[in-house]
Amino acid sequence: MIPNWLLKRAALTPHAPALTFQRKTWSYLQLKEEAADRAGKLRALGLERGSRIALLGGTSAEMALLIHGCLLAGVEMVMLNARLTAEEIEYQLQDSESELLVCEEAFRNQAKQQICQTIVYDEFLQLERESFPLEQMWEEDRTLTIMYTSGTTGFPKGVRQTAENHTSSALSAVLNSGLHAGDAWLHMMPLFHISGFSILARAVLYGSEVRLFEKFDASAAAEEITTGRVTGMSVVAVTLERLLTVIENNKLTVHPKFRTLLAGGGPVPVSYLKRAEQCGLPVLQTYGMTETSSQTATLSAEDALRKPGSAGKPLFFTEIQIDGADEPFDRGEILIKGPHVTKGYIGKHTTAEALQEGWLHSGDIGYFDDEGFLFVADRRSDLIISGGENIYPAEIEAVLAEHPQVAEAGVCAMASAEWGAIPAAFVVTRSPINAESLMEFCQTRLASYKLPKSFHFVDELPRNASNKLLRKELREMLTAEK
Amino acid sequence: MIPNWLLKRAALTPHAPALTFQRKTWSYLQLKEEAADRAGKLRALGLERGSRIALLGGTSAEMALLIHGCLLAGVEMVMLNARLTAEEIEYQLQDSESELLVCEEAFRNQAKQQICQTIVYDEFLQLERESFPLEQMWEEDRTLTIMYTSGTTGFPKGVRQTAENHTSSALSAVLNSGLHAGDAWLHMMPLFHISGFSILARAVLYGSEVRLFEKFDASAAAEEITTGRVTGMSVVAVTLERLLTVIENNKLTVHPKFRTLLAGGGPVPVSYLKRAEQCGLPVLQTYGMTETSSQTATLSAEDALRKPGSAGKPLFFTEIQIDGADEPFDRGEILIKGPHVTKGYIGKHTTAEALQEGWLHSGDIGYFDDEGFLFVADRRSDLIISGGENIYPAEIEAVLAEHPQVAEAGVCAMASAEWGAIPAAFVVTRSPINAESLMEFCQTRLASYKLPKSFHFVDELPRNASNKLLRKELREMLTAEK
Repeated sequence: MIPNWLLKRAALTPHAPALTFQRKTWSYLQLKEEAADRAGKLRALGLERGSRIALLGGTSAEMALLIHGCLLAGVEMVMLNARLTAEEIEYQLQDSESELLVCEEAFRNQAKQQICQTIVYDEFLQLERESFPLEQMWEEDRTLTIMYTSGTTGFPKGVRQTAENHTSSALSAVLNSGLHAGDAWLHMMPLFHISGFSILARAVLYGSEVRLFEKFDASAAAEEITTGRVTGMSVVAVTLERLLTVIENNKLTVHPKFRTLLAGGGPVPVSYLKRAEQCGLPVLQTYGMTETSSQTATLSAEDALRKPGSAGKPLFFTEIQIDGADEPFDRGEILIKGPHVTKGYIGKHTTAEALQEGWLHSGDIGYFDDEGFLFVADRRSDLIISGGENIYPAEIEAVLAEHPQVAEAGVCAMASAEWGAIPAAFVVTRSPINAESLMEFCQTRLASYKLPKSFHFVDELPRNASNKLLRKELREMLTAEK
Repeated sequence: MIPNWLLKRAALTPHAPALTFQRKTWSYLQLKEEAADRAGKLRALGLERGSRIALLGGTSAEMALLIHGCLLAGVEMVMLNARLTAEEIEYQLQDSESELLVCEEAFRNQAKQQICQTIVYDEFLQLERESFPLEQMWEEDRTLTIMYTSGTTGFPKGVRQTAENHTSSALSAVLNSGLHAGDAWLHMMPLFHISGFSILARAVLYGSEVRLFEKFDASAAAEEITTGRVTGMSVVAVTLERLLTVIENNKLTVHPKFRTLLAGGGPVPVSYLKRAEQCGLPVLQTYGMTETSSQTATLSAEDALRKPGSAGKPLFFTEIQIDGADEPFDRGEILIKGPHVTKGYIGKHTTAEALQEGWLHSGDIGYFDDEGFLFVADRRSDLIISGGENIYPAEIEAVLAEHPQVAEAGVCAMASAEWGAIPAAFVVTRSPINAESLMEFCQTRLASYKLPKSFHFVDELPRNASNKLLRKELREMLTAEK
């Protein structure tokens, strides 16, 4: 059994700050009271322990309070990505058999559907709460959240994340990142992503503060970090780059209390790591996914430059194997095991085996070096196989990002009659530059078969809500160009 | 499954300091190599996963290495209290069905017995190691350690402590005490006690350093604490007082890095807490026992003077209830639940139910105040806590009753400024006998700390209508004698 997180936390440290949003702060006791109110309203709507509801909205204190209310009430949450189309939302509501959709006013149009009852958040708040006894303890296998992911197949599957999954993830993380009195985490990630939800989960287990923002804001982030108001923050490569730019341009000094810049959602170019070191920003690169309830391996800041491109070592309660690998540097599919790994899917994919003999097959390709550091060579679906050679887009992107005039780069496969596939590069530049000089830059750094066969200059790269590069959309852009 | 602690830790942070003893430091990689050597020697002796061995010795690096070796090899350890007599040792070896006793040279006499093979540690070290594959993962329910405690009955019972017990105890503790890079714990407790073993367990889970000393040394402790070489230390009331005296007399300043003085083994007088605050020593009072694999509730340093005498709140993964209590301040037996609580006993007490409906009945009386802080009002009426060691009157009474001239015996606690409490014996004799010969009789049968410090010859013992010994009245008789 696992204690009902927020009940236990509010009993332990009732007066510690729990959540701050737009200058308002809730203590853990206040957070519990607000969440209990939301739980009572869910009860008034007929929802009970094990009922399933879908949440649709942006990032706000109200959404965080509702999430905590669902946890208190024992209601399973289907976390809808705020960027979904109406059609995609219908699919997920139907597949998850959600009993209710709670959405923010701004999402009313997207949320029009015939699958289940919908309630707008403002109306929800008007409901009378029904009081009922809150559960003190949770079974390990209780589902807390459901997040849809396309995984390797392209078909969205609802991933079931249990109390044990999230709890053990947080415990692995604390043994890696430490815990100080007064810790506060800067939250500029989407709440519906595992990256964003796991920040809430860790904070309530640790008794630390979440400083929540509507969205990523490089200037605000720089201020939080340099004034010492936060001790940690989650980023992806592109938001890291923007944060670095603000800190560099304004010659800001990172506060000594700040000790964890957790960088997930893909590899971070070495040039960013070097700039971060110059700024005194401790970057911890991490590897994880929806199916592993956040981090599985994380690289310490000390090793960031010694092991560029590595995702570190498997955390204390996690195991990683490279399928078929006998020795260091042998590449293969990354297999993951541990109490943080999903027990499986819901809906029409319930019968799909998430695990094979206890191992999650990530679909990603990687290897361990001779010191046990994991390197994620690339996501398998993005693999470009060209004339029998394997090409990993991330490797080319990292090279392009080192060019002083390149702000960001994305690489995808382009069909080739001769080679099967060849790499194409999309580039956002800081100032005009031509393809020839980019090619010259690459030629000294990449084997010829890895060289992009075309360069596309764009204003921005397609990214998802957590700013992860969408290489699939790059491929669509290529097709459209023809 | 839980990762084999030391294998995982050595993989994560091979070069971090793990253990320091008498100016020699082992990194986690070195600790693993030494422990693997000891594991290989155990294997050479025919011991396998699940075999049971008993350890007898003082505190030394070698003993710590052997303990880690047993853990690596999957061998269950019976932790013998170094102060036991030969007779007490025989009982525990027989009851635990130990296959082997490993003892230090200095304990050779005590260790003479016919129950199982004995090997002196120096000879053990000469053995050739047999190499065998180490287990990467442990089942939660695997027994790691067995510690004997007399409990309520007076008969020593072997408490089974599992991988899950120790691991969850360490995880509850980290969420309470935090974890900083460079943490080091000053270890001046007996290794065979749960207080001492749990320091080793926490360190390897956290990746922090243990600075091990042969025994408590107030001057050395003050130096470690004031130079910042350690960030935490475990004490009992009597050692806390000695440490305070050194710090006060030498007007020493506690290093700002030092943040946890964990005080267990019974209540700490308020006067000590006030002196500790004056010295800048952060005292965390804790409540725990062998059956709970160390801490169950711990009071933070901030609350030490606001809640004097309190043991704090139940840690994150632990539950405490007061039997029969409806409201704050209602007194009753303290009941404990959680993954840190023993699953039961071994040997002849295997069938004794440790838990009732999942709850451990501690035998201690306590209450919660209106803010949820636990107060241990009274250790089990018959428990004598002397310098952090638990002494069970029934065990001493049973020994005295074996003496041919003794008709009945009753033992109770006598106040001691130095030790908190010491045992006093009341004896009804069949024919005249003097205290010296009774003492001689006890010395071969009881560890020295359990020996009665005074003998009182009486015509009868106070008993209630059902002839139950009234130890409370014995205490009153002691007071009246003065």
